[in-house]
Amino acid sequence: MSVKTLDWVNDKLILIDQRILPHKEEYVHVTNIDECFDSIKVMVVRGAPLIGFTALYGLVLWTQQNSKSNSHEFEKAGKKLATARPTAVNLNFEVNRAIEKAKQYEKENNSLEGFSKLLEDFALAEITALETKNLNMAKAAEKELEAMYPGKKKFNLMTLCNTGFLACGPMGTALGVISYMNSQGKVNNVIASETRPYLQGGRLTAFELVTEKIPHQIVVEGAHSHILKNGLVDAIFIGADRIVSNGDTANKVGSSSLSIIASHYGIPFYVVAPISSFDLDSEDGSEIEIEMRPEEEVLSCNGVRIAPMESRALNPSFDVTDHKLIEGIFCENGIIKPVDKNNLLGVVN
Amino acid sequence: MSVKTLDWVNDKLILIDQRILPHKEEYVHVTNIDECFDSIKVMVVRGAPLIGFTALYGLVLWTQQNSKSNSHEFEKAGKKLATARPTAVNLNFEVNRAIEKAKQYEKENNSLEGFSKLLEDFALAEITALETKNLNMAKAAEKELEAMYPGKKKFNLMTLCNTGFLACGPMGTALGVISYMNSQGKVNNVIASETRPYLQGGRLTAFELVTEKIPHQIVVEGAHSHILKNGLVDAIFIGADRIVSNGDTANKVGSSSLSIIASHYGIPFYVVAPISSFDLDSEDGSEIEIEMRPEEEVLSCNGVRIAPMESRALNPSFDVTDHKLIEGIFCENGIIKPVDKNNLLGVVN
Repeated sequence: MSVKTLDWVNDKLILIDQRILPHKEEYVHVTNIDECFDSIKVMVVRGAPLIGFTALYGLVLWTQQNSKSNSHEFEKAGKKLATARPTAVNLNFEVNRAIEKAKQYEKENNSLEGFSKLLEDFALAEITALETKNLNMAKAAEKELEAMYPGKKKFNLMTLCNTGFLACGPMGTALGVISYMNSQGKVNNVIASETRPYLQGGRLTAFELVTEKIPHQIVVEGAHSHILKNGLVDAIFIGADRIVSNGDTANKVGSSSLSIIASHYGIPFYVVAPISSFDLDSEDGSEIEIEMRPEEEVLSCNGVRIAPMESRALNPSFDVTDHKLIEGIFCENGIIKPVDKNNLLGVVN
Repeated sequence: MSVKTLDWVNDKLILIDQRILPHKEEYVHVTNIDECFDSIKVMVVRGAPLIGFTALYGLVLWTQQNSKSNSHEFEKAGKKLATARPTAVNLNFEVNRAIEKAKQYEKENNSLEGFSKLLEDFALAEITALETKNLNMAKAAEKELEAMYPGKKKFNLMTLCNTGFLACGPMGTALGVISYMNSQGKVNNVIASETRPYLQGGRLTAFELVTEKIPHQIVVEGAHSHILKNGLVDAIFIGADRIVSNGDTANKVGSSSLSIIASHYGIPFYVVAPISSFDLDSEDGSEIEIEMRPEEEVLSCNGVRIAPMESRALNPSFDVTDHKLIEGIFCENGIIKPVDKNNLLGVVN
């Protein structure tokens, strides 16, 4: 691919501005932790894994610029950064690991001097590791699909929101499955939901699908019932922002809606996510905080106001898919199926 | 209200251009049947009842301009006009009634001279009659809601697409219920789905709700599960483009998706439509032709391209809601509940 989603060059974090893709490719240069916070908050960068990596580099920048500081201050900076977006768990996950590392480093070296290099190496290692994990998930999904549809050569797959290289850095989670299946010549067509209000599907997933030359059609969310009823989809793959112990899954708003419709028509619905997206401290979906984003995102489209100025909106950015409606969850350790607490803990731990 | 959706002035049909509402109020002047066809086709005018009325005035114009012609030519012109949009049945319904009238008139008068005046009166009478019908439906819905939720004073109602005065001329079908309930002080809040790709909800329904000062929030279609799960809606009302004998209902794409989610959470889902929207010649929803509209409507939003130029889209403009998921259908004769062929024929005939 020609696009690098996230790059670390000469102690600067360079992010492609995902708000204006696919028609403009512009880059945002992040030079300190406050700019990092803002980039996550306003969604220059999005996608659960990529937010996690962005935060790690933000902490590298902080450490470089505060080399005389201590792990207590590092923890404060990290905890603040983690509030940039509340629903995806990867952000917290990576920040907490960095904090543990800082404490350990300080214990061994009596200061944080030199820690920024270690954290930089760790961030790169995390990105490299995710690539392998994504490939493993994709192979597990291939096996599952072929068991589900014996003898089928090419599949019609569907996804919502954006989970490819733009969301993950490496090949991606749900779109990683589609990308891998396509590389094996096993994709007939992909249905991509446009994913209002931010249009991650219509803009970003479509951009990835075009980049990888995968045949696809974009649909509005309202079309889900018509599409599934008419046999245009063999299986659905989505990513996850947070998976709790019983398998309930927070993901982009529209996922739960789609899972209910898929269940109604008997179409298998899968979640694909690395273990960094799991939150085993929560029992079920009722414990997940759902981020409410600005009303203007709904009242406008692509920066152009749609609704009358007097109108209000309700803009939940995520929803929780009931684990009973999920056919299986793929993580780097394999498939969790059926989705329940016992199976989940068995596979993840 | 300050806006007149459709007006007949000095032998000219004046339509508010619904493509550019709510921010611009511009009017299209229709002076012949070809312009009438185009206005329906490109959706200057939309909404099943309003399309029917527009077609009647188009035929008035044809008759004025072809006063020496005969009922055979009239039928040809009418049948062609009826192809402007295939899914809504009102268009065919009104055109066929006009054709019958033309034949009758010709039989009695040996020509169509003077028929245009009769047709003009008929169109106006149809619009006036719909107002009374809408009020009756709204009163029946009020009774149903109060029986469903005894003692409840104010309701949280939800709708999709646009069914108010912009769609109907008079007060409207599903939005007519909401409008009437509000006039009785019985509406707490309205959730309006934005209804991509044409944004009838976010633009037009919101415009009507603002005009009538009804408190409301716009949501994207993806948010339906989250909204219904969280108890924000007591009942859902939609309109219909075509209701067949068993109660299966074609309406704006997203309706069927919403009905499945409503059923999952046990929220009652109602259809509101005049008998002119019923198609008793069809047995079930499988016989309904679903209009596939241009891909560009999905690939763009408000005239601004969203998706990469290489992307394709699938744009079904309607879907079919299974009668089993409909709690009741309101028509001018009362409520059809439960929704099945026997009940439906009993009420409609």
